[in-house]
Amino acid sequence: MPDRYVLVLAGGRGERFWPWSQPARPKQLLPLARDGRSLLATTFERALRLVPSADRVLVMTALDLKDAVQRECPGARVLGEPVPRNTAPAIAAAAAGWIPDASAFAVLPADHAIDDLDAFARDARRAFEVAEREPVLVTFGIPPAGPDTSFGYVRRGAKLGERLFRAAQFTEKPDAARARTFVESGEYMWNSGMFVWRKSVFFGALEAGRPALAGALRGSSSGGGVSGFEDRMREVFPALESISVDYAVLEKAPNVLVLEASFDWDDLGSWGAWARRQPRDARGNVAFGDAVVVDCDDCVVVGEGGTAAAMGLRDMIVVHANGATLSCPIAQSEGVRRVSEAVRARGAE
Amino acid sequence: MPDRYVLVLAGGRGERFWPWSQPARPKQLLPLARDGRSLLATTFERALRLVPSADRVLVMTALDLKDAVQRECPGARVLGEPVPRNTAPAIAAAAAGWIPDASAFAVLPADHAIDDLDAFARDARRAFEVAEREPVLVTFGIPPAGPDTSFGYVRRGAKLGERLFRAAQFTEKPDAARARTFVESGEYMWNSGMFVWRKSVFFGALEAGRPALAGALRGSSSGGGVSGFEDRMREVFPALESISVDYAVLEKAPNVLVLEASFDWDDLGSWGAWARRQPRDARGNVAFGDAVVVDCDDCVVVGEGGTAAAMGLRDMIVVHANGATLSCPIAQSEGVRRVSEAVRARGAE
Repeated sequence: MPDRYVLVLAGGRGERFWPWSQPARPKQLLPLARDGRSLLATTFERALRLVPSADRVLVMTALDLKDAVQRECPGARVLGEPVPRNTAPAIAAAAAGWIPDASAFAVLPADHAIDDLDAFARDARRAFEVAEREPVLVTFGIPPAGPDTSFGYVRRGAKLGERLFRAAQFTEKPDAARARTFVESGEYMWNSGMFVWRKSVFFGALEAGRPALAGALRGSSSGGGVSGFEDRMREVFPALESISVDYAVLEKAPNVLVLEASFDWDDLGSWGAWARRQPRDARGNVAFGDAVVVDCDDCVVVGEGGTAAAMGLRDMIVVHANGATLSCPIAQSEGVRRVSEAVRARGAE
Repeated sequence: MPDRYVLVLAGGRGERFWPWSQPARPKQLLPLARDGRSLLATTFERALRLVPSADRVLVMTALDLKDAVQRECPGARVLGEPVPRNTAPAIAAAAAGWIPDASAFAVLPADHAIDDLDAFARDARRAFEVAEREPVLVTFGIPPAGPDTSFGYVRRGAKLGERLFRAAQFTEKPDAARARTFVESGEYMWNSGMFVWRKSVFFGALEAGRPALAGALRGSSSGGGVSGFEDRMREVFPALESISVDYAVLEKAPNVLVLEASFDWDDLGSWGAWARRQPRDARGNVAFGDAVVVDCDDCVVVGEGGTAAAMGLRDMIVVHANGATLSCPIAQSEGVRRVSEAVRARGAE
C-alpha cells in the first residue's frame, strides 16, 4: 500500500474575524481553538494522526504566509500559491506536484475546529481504506445540529455500510426555509469540505469536470523542490479558473461517497460560531483576553492588545484587536466581511 | 473699579469619556468643542472676553496637567493643586492667593460647551456689574431644555430685574419624576456651575458655610510666585475637606442671585451629551475620526488612533481610543464611569 498523504488548505484570509484577522494573520493562524492554539496547529495535529511522518503533510498557503504557516506545522512541506484560485486549483497543483499517483490523500481545510481527535482519526482512516479500495471520492458529512444557512449540504443516497452512503446531491448554502426542509428530511448532512481520495481518482474526476484545469496542472512535478514548484506555479496559476473543488469535481462526479462523521465539527465561520465553543460566564458572556464586561448578557467581548469594554449590551460582539474596533449584533457576525471591505475601501481612498 | 478676573476650573479627570479621556488627557483637553478645539481652549477664549489681559485669567488644575493646560491657555496663570479637593478649596485657594480683595471674578468650569460667545460675554458682563455693585453671589441659571437628571437645579425666587432673580433653592441632580416636576413648574433652571462674585463676598459666604476651609486658605498670598503658592498648597491642601462650592457656599448663603442665561450651554457630561451637538448623517449617526458605520441608526462611532467599526446597531456608542474600546447604549453613557472604574480595578489586580 503506498503512503498516505494529507493536504492542508491554508490559503484563506478569514475576513469574517476582522479586526482580529488581518491579511498577514488570517483566521487559521489565530488562537481560535478551544485550547488557545491556532486552528492550523490543531489541523496539523489531526493530520499527523493519519500519516507515517510530518513530511507526508503538504500545506498549501499563500506565499506571504509560508513562514507563519511553517511555524505552526513543523516538518510539514509548505507550498506557496502565487495568487488565490480557490480550492480546486490548490488541490490539483499540490497533488500533481507532490503526491504519488497511487497514493490516497486527505484534504483538510486549515480553519476547522474538531475536538474529538480519536473519533476523527478513526473516521479518516476508514475513509482512507474505502478510497484505497474503491475508485471513489469520499467526503465527510456532518449530522446537522440545526438548519444552519452558513454551510453547504449533501443529500445521502443508497447506504453502502455503517455511516457510509452514496452522495446523491450537493447544495450550496441554502436559505433558511430550505435548510429547515433539509434538516427535517433527515437525508441531509453538512458538507464539511474534508475529503479523501486517490490522486488518480481525483484527477479522473477533475478531468471530467474541468479538463482545462486538470490539463494545466496534471504534468506538474516536484523536480526543483519547493522553489521550483512555486516558480512553475507563478507561471501557471494566474491563468487558472478560480473554482471550488465542490463545484469543479464533487457536484458532477458519479462516484462520490459520504461518510457520516462520528466526530464534532465546526468551520468557525464567524465570531458567533467561535463564541458557541467558548466558556461563558453566568450571564452567558464570552470574555476573551483583555475584556471588561459590565451588566451585559450573552455578549462576546474580545480584547487583544488593548481593553475591550462593553456595558449594558445584549447579544452583541465587541472586539478590540490590531488597533481597531468592531461592534455588531452576534446575529450579524456572518456579515463582518462587509465591515472589513468597508474598512479596506476607506483605506484605499 | 478694580480689575476683573476669571478663574477657570480645569482639575477634572472626566472619566465619563473613557477611553478617549485618560488621566493625562482628561475631558477638558479633548477636542470636544464643535470646532474641534478643546473645551478648555474655548473656555479660555470666553474668559478673554471678560478681562483686560490674559494674565487676569487664572486656571486651577492638577499639577501633572499644568503643561498641557498652559498650551491651551497662552498667557494665563496656571496653578497646580497637589490633590483634588473639589471646587470650594480650589476657588478659595486661587482667589486668596491671586485676586485682590475688592476684585470680582468669574468662575468658569473648563469643560462646558457654549456656542454663543457674544451672548455669553453680554450676560457675564452684566453679572460682573451686579456683583461689583451688590454684596451678592451671582450664578448663571440655564432655562431647562427638558427634565434632564444629569444637572443640578436652582429654583428662582423674587425677580430683581430682567432675567435676574433671587435664588430660592438649590437641588442636586434629581430623579426623573422630580426633574419633570421642576421643569413643569417653570420656576427651575439648570445650575450651570458658573459664578461671578467679589473675592470679599465669596470669602464672607465661605466663612459662614465652612469656616475651617475659609480660615485655612484666606491668608494665602502670591508671594513666591506660582511655585511658592504651589509649595504652600502642597502643605495645606491634603488636609482640606473635599467639598463643592455649591454645597459649601451656595446652598446656604442668603445672598445668591441667579441670572437666567441668554446663551446656549451644555456641560457635555457624557458621550450622549457630546453627540447631541455633533453633525449626523442621514440615518442619525455621528461618525467621528476613523469611523466606519455600516447599516446603523442613531449611533455614535468614534475612532481615534485606529478604526472604530459598527454594523447593524441602533442607539449605541462605539469608541476606539487610546488603544481601548468601549461599546454601550447611548442611554447608558452617563454610566461610563462604571466601566473606567472596572478597567482601573482590573489594572490594579
